[in-house]
Amino acid sequence: MDDTAPTGALSSRILDHRTAALAADAARLLAETRARRPRVHALTNAAAQAFTANLLLAAGAIPSLTIAAEEAGHFARRADAVLVNLGTLDAERRAGIPVAVAAAREAGRPLVLDPVFVEASPPRLAVARELLAQGPAIVRLNPGELEALGGRAPTPETAAALARADGLVVALTGATDVVTDGVRSLRIGNGHPLMARVTAMGCAGSALVAAFAALEPDRVTAAAAALLVLGVAGEIAGARAVGPGSFPAAYLDALDALCEADLVSHARVS
Amino acid sequence: MDDTAPTGALSSRILDHRTAALAADAARLLAETRARRPRVHALTNAAAQAFTANLLLAAGAIPSLTIAAEEAGHFARRADAVLVNLGTLDAERRAGIPVAVAAAREAGRPLVLDPVFVEASPPRLAVARELLAQGPAIVRLNPGELEALGGRAPTPETAAALARADGLVVALTGATDVVTDGVRSLRIGNGHPLMARVTAMGCAGSALVAAFAALEPDRVTAAAAALLVLGVAGEIAGARAVGPGSFPAAYLDALDALCEADLVSHARVS
Amino acid sequence: MDDTAPTGALSSRILDHRTAALAADAARLLAETRARRPRVHALTNAAAQAFTANLLLAAGAIPSLTIAAEEAGHFARRADAVLVNLGTLDAERRAGIPVAVAAAREAGRPLVLDPVFVEASPPRLAVARELLAQGPAIVRLNPGELEALGGRAPTPETAAALARADGLVVALTGATDVVTDGVRSLRIGNGHPLMARVTAMGCAGSALVAAFAALEPDRVTAAAAALLVLGVAGEIAGARAVGPGSFPAAYLDALDALCEADLVSHARVS
Repeated sequence: MDDTAPTGALSSRILDHRTAALAADAARLLAETRARRPRVHALTNAAAQAFTANLLLAAGAIPSLTIAAEEAGHFARRADAVLVNLGTLDAERRAGIPVAVAAAREAGRPLVLDPVFVEASPPRLAVARELLAQGPAIVRLNPGELEALGGRAPTPETAAALARADGLVVALTGATDVVTDGVRSLRIGNGHPLMARVTAMGCAGSALVAAFAALEPDRVTAAAAALLVLGVAGEIAGARAVGPGSFPAAYLDALDALCEADLVSHARVS
Repeated sequence: MDDTAPTGALSSRILDHRTAALAADAARLLAETRARRPRVHALTNAAAQAFTANLLLAAGAIPSLTIAAEEAGHFARRADAVLVNLGTLDAERRAGIPVAVAAAREAGRPLVLDPVFVEASPPRLAVARELLAQGPAIVRLNPGELEALGGRAPTPETAAALARADGLVVALTGATDVVTDGVRSLRIGNGHPLMARVTAMGCAGSALVAAFAALEPDRVTAAAAALLVLGVAGEIAGARAVGPGSFPAAYLDALDALCEADLVSHARVS
Repeated sequence: MDDTAPTGALSSRILDHRTAALAADAARLLAETRARRPRVHALTNAAAQAFTANLLLAAGAIPSLTIAAEEAGHFARRADAVLVNLGTLDAERRAGIPVAVAAAREAGRPLVLDPVFVEASPPRLAVARELLAQGPAIVRLNPGELEALGGRAPTPETAAALARADGLVVALTGATDVVTDGVRSLRIGNGHPLMARVTAMGCAGSALVAAFAALEPDRVTAAAAALLVLGVAGEIAGARAVGPGSFPAAYLDALDALCEADLVSHARVS
């Protein structure tokens, strides 16, 4: 690299390197998911269960979904990663989540937390705060949820502060996704507007974050690679779908067929 | 209008006026839903949750679905309308429904009731009767459910009698939909046979009734406009779908793209 | 038949007879399902509820799904067959299943058991063992579940031994399906790899087994005919779908349109 190169050109080269590196990581983790078929046990909300299972299957992973306290530990122990999503937080889920989280911790499995709609319900926010103290590897959330958990405007800096405070990776999704452990940060500019027009897209995406976390010890890479895969699949599906009705099928078809060339040609990382 | 015009021609002109008026109301309410994005909190059955959320999103509204008693009040209070559907009426739903209904009443939000399968289960019929006493704005039901609640053959007259007795609007769906407050009545002849070949079509449709009730104080107009939108979307989707498998996606795509010209050209109102 | 015919030719003729007979039975039961519309009450897992209802509707049957103990008996009594699927076995399901099973026994309705993931959870395996003692007509399971229930390698012989021990029909699904009452056995070679890439395909298929068991007293024929219909629909859909995302809609469209000629031309039975 030439120290005299103009700043614009330099940062453009840095961008290119990050994009190429994350596209390669994402392609590798997708190939490993298809080959090694990690098990993901997802305690997720009622509206997201079927789509979450189908997204994991389309990616090559093996889903299980049981919530009951009596069974959640058995399923979490045989899984390679555990996802806890706080949507539709009923009594059964309140009882099952701690059992699954304890089993995941004992077995050393990565835990991914998706604190859906914590801004809408004080009891749910309290549960999310308790779970943040249990050492999740990654928290995947949107700006409204980050504002509630971080206590201030949902900026990348708030995400980084939350990551540092709780010793985890924050994956903040939106028009541009931000993945940060409080020191390193990646921004992913992929995705499609139809992803916000279908329920459970974010929830199911968190399950792919968990699948990649089962395979990749670097949590920033795992989370960012999953969000890149999801964003590129969304762009390919968005170009094929008629509208929000046909989008979910097109999205899973695109995820199933996604290859490294798709990732390299679409990725926008900084 | 000419007082000497023959009755047939007169009623034909009245028909035309009603059709044009309801098509215009439906187009206006759909545009307002897309622009103002009303929140609908839906306590609905397990098989309908995902499709209900996706129908609301396709129409432009914002869904939430939590049932738990601890949370349902928080979600109902921040919603613009509340839907209670009695399918899969388990302990969690039995506990959450009164909390959400009380919160909706306190906040002055319209409540829509969908008494699914009340004819099949005496305990569920009892819950429906209690809810009718809580002042729902609109009840959306099918002939079997009306017969169980109205206590006699499910005719438009029975619907009108139920509406008068309970001071609400009855939206009776079938080959021809009837919307009545006991005084005024509208009949909507739109729809497609595939709508009866897919689960949760009626349940999810009730959520659009709730969204329109959040925006339109005239309950007959709100309910009839929603049923017109749903019926026309069904006709457009029915012409495109291969069968019941591809119908739901085509239906949401049609709803997303529906415009005033579609409503005007398809509406059959009397 | 000529006693001097070579073995190869003889077994080829026996194959042909079985294939033709099962294709004819499957076509007859599908026609009866469309004409008589049997009611199937399905206590099934959370991720399978909507797709199970849609598969039953696509086949012409009428689904209901309530799990609550207070209601499950009312629904089971008015159904023509009852399906119990052990996925997502929570407290509500644990309480409702015995009520529905008792109602089905009292009313003389066939009971179909789908012991999902019993190999993953000791408490679930215990529930499955209790249910096997309640006289289900048919158990539909995969090799991992058979191994857990049969106590040894999941071969056709293990399936036959389980069928004899519990006096029921075992329908073991996989690359080749095996249906056996311990004496008679049928093997069905139909299906498509995408059927294993979508959640709830097996669970929903068990509901068609229940619908056919409501119409056909010979349990081997009922189960085998249902698996043949599902396998042929899967092959037709697999040829049309882009991937696992578009497969479920194509599958239900194929099931809706399936005719005797499809069954005759695709069936592979031995």
